[in-house]
Amino acid sequence: MAERIGFIGLGIMGKPMVRNLANAGYKLVLNSRRQESVAEMVAEIPGAIGAATPFEVAKQADVVIMMVPDSPDVEKVVFGEGGLIEAVKPGSLIIDMSTIATTSSLLVHEAVATRGGQSLDAPVSGGDKGAIAGTLSIMVGGSAEAFDRAKPIFEAMGKTIVHCGGPGAGQTVKSANQIAVAVNIAGLAEALVFAAKAGVEPAKVLEVLGGGLATSRVLDMRGPGMIKGEFTPGFRIDLHRKDLNNTLATARTQGSPIPVTALVSQLFDAASSAGRGQLDHSGLLTILEDLAGVQVKDV
Amino acid sequence: MAERIGFIGLGIMGKPMVRNLANAGYKLVLNSRRQESVAEMVAEIPGAIGAATPFEVAKQADVVIMMVPDSPDVEKVVFGEGGLIEAVKPGSLIIDMSTIATTSSLLVHEAVATRGGQSLDAPVSGGDKGAIAGTLSIMVGGSAEAFDRAKPIFEAMGKTIVHCGGPGAGQTVKSANQIAVAVNIAGLAEALVFAAKAGVEPAKVLEVLGGGLATSRVLDMRGPGMIKGEFTPGFRIDLHRKDLNNTLATARTQGSPIPVTALVSQLFDAASSAGRGQLDHSGLLTILEDLAGVQVKDV
Repeated sequence: MAERIGFIGLGIMGKPMVRNLANAGYKLVLNSRRQESVAEMVAEIPGAIGAATPFEVAKQADVVIMMVPDSPDVEKVVFGEGGLIEAVKPGSLIIDMSTIATTSSLLVHEAVATRGGQSLDAPVSGGDKGAIAGTLSIMVGGSAEAFDRAKPIFEAMGKTIVHCGGPGAGQTVKSANQIAVAVNIAGLAEALVFAAKAGVEPAKVLEVLGGGLATSRVLDMRGPGMIKGEFTPGFRIDLHRKDLNNTLATARTQGSPIPVTALVSQLFDAASSAGRGQLDHSGLLTILEDLAGVQVKDV
Repeated sequence: MAERIGFIGLGIMGKPMVRNLANAGYKLVLNSRRQESVAEMVAEIPGAIGAATPFEVAKQADVVIMMVPDSPDVEKVVFGEGGLIEAVKPGSLIIDMSTIATTSSLLVHEAVATRGGQSLDAPVSGGDKGAIAGTLSIMVGGSAEAFDRAKPIFEAMGKTIVHCGGPGAGQTVKSANQIAVAVNIAGLAEALVFAAKAGVEPAKVLEVLGGGLATSRVLDMRGPGMIKGEFTPGFRIDLHRKDLNNTLATARTQGSPIPVTALVSQLFDAASSAGRGQLDHSGLLTILEDLAGVQVKDV
């Protein structure tokens, strides 16, 4: 019989991930900040049970997955009142699939190791669509032994599963991913606004750029929405801001300046200040439109 | 019989473009700053003749193509001593395939129109490889009538030929292209250096980013060289700097701030100051490596 898995965090990502684990035959112990979410999933999934605290989850399951919004949430789940760390023992495997600061991630790895347990950081990309379809990309940091043990579990939730290196390496590669996506969005946005201000039809820009070295998945996936002024998420500006803030903090700590990312993060901040934090991250375009006094969709 | 074409500028791009025009059956009148280049091509191409000045070229050919390095070169060819403008008359078609500032391009359009001629700006991408293979992307600005007349000529030199809009639109879209390429390079460079500083193997970064929203043609084409520290051009940093300088000048004139491009252009300037202007533009990576004190290829 498959292992019993604890799962903490039943949000927009956590719920479909739990469903995929259940479909793969895993028994589940669930906990979430919102008690209604636990009740809902326990009612939906035969055999799933709820637990009152992260500590109670870890008491009943050797493998515990966390999927919560940010570093403070992970630290609360692990180290706070009713936190799981006191239940960690040799044989425990703690998998943090949240996207958080590498420094927080390393704190968790260290605390789990001190108690003789195993741990992985395993942030994902692919969004709620990928979570529902079970096609997430999973970037994993930690020991090869822990990775091998977790692999079948990851395979229930994701498609591209890469062991990136030791503790923190998953968060590092996720940060690298968020850097490249944010900067590519900014580059395409500046290209479109520059051309629009000169009166060139944006569709021509996508046509030419899409055929050469300038092209990107961002252009393919978000370009058509950007030239129509459609910014339905997708991945929200405020979430990308959170990831970039963590990345910039880590960059500062480890001593690797990323000036272009820092500037792009300021533009995301401007979008949030303008009340657009709930737009898709390609909505960064609107800040450049404001600066230039032109709307790409009107050209 | 095919039209006689004047061609001014026999550099690394001009020579192969002239060969492709000759292969398509066009008669040629050639001029270049370096007299040796004219002599070489006249010797090589049966029926091609040399002309002492741009004026003499335009006297002998209704269609004249320019392919020179930058705005001052174009302005000299058109308006300087022995410049072609005095030979422009109704029926003339002046095609500038150089990548220059939109403001310079508009000056040429205006002067040619004043004398009753037609003109196109038609910068290219695809580099010397594309010029040799006859697969350039050609971005064209000017009237539909002039575009239709020039189309068979473009087809001898390029593959993707797009009429982007009125006068200057070709330069505008080329600028948009150079913006997106430069910024995508910077984004990938920051992602790689950030991860390398954290000790993560760069190949893992390319593997994960290459499979998701972060991927780009830059990642596919330049990523493998970047993680090996190989920066053989390709397209040189100093040429990309020139294009970004023109783009920034135009952006300032037309009132469309492009702050991310401005910062990336400063990083290209830094690369040039460090004596790396002859590296491929992906060599921008080395400036971020310097800032972080890490070499991606050594991780």
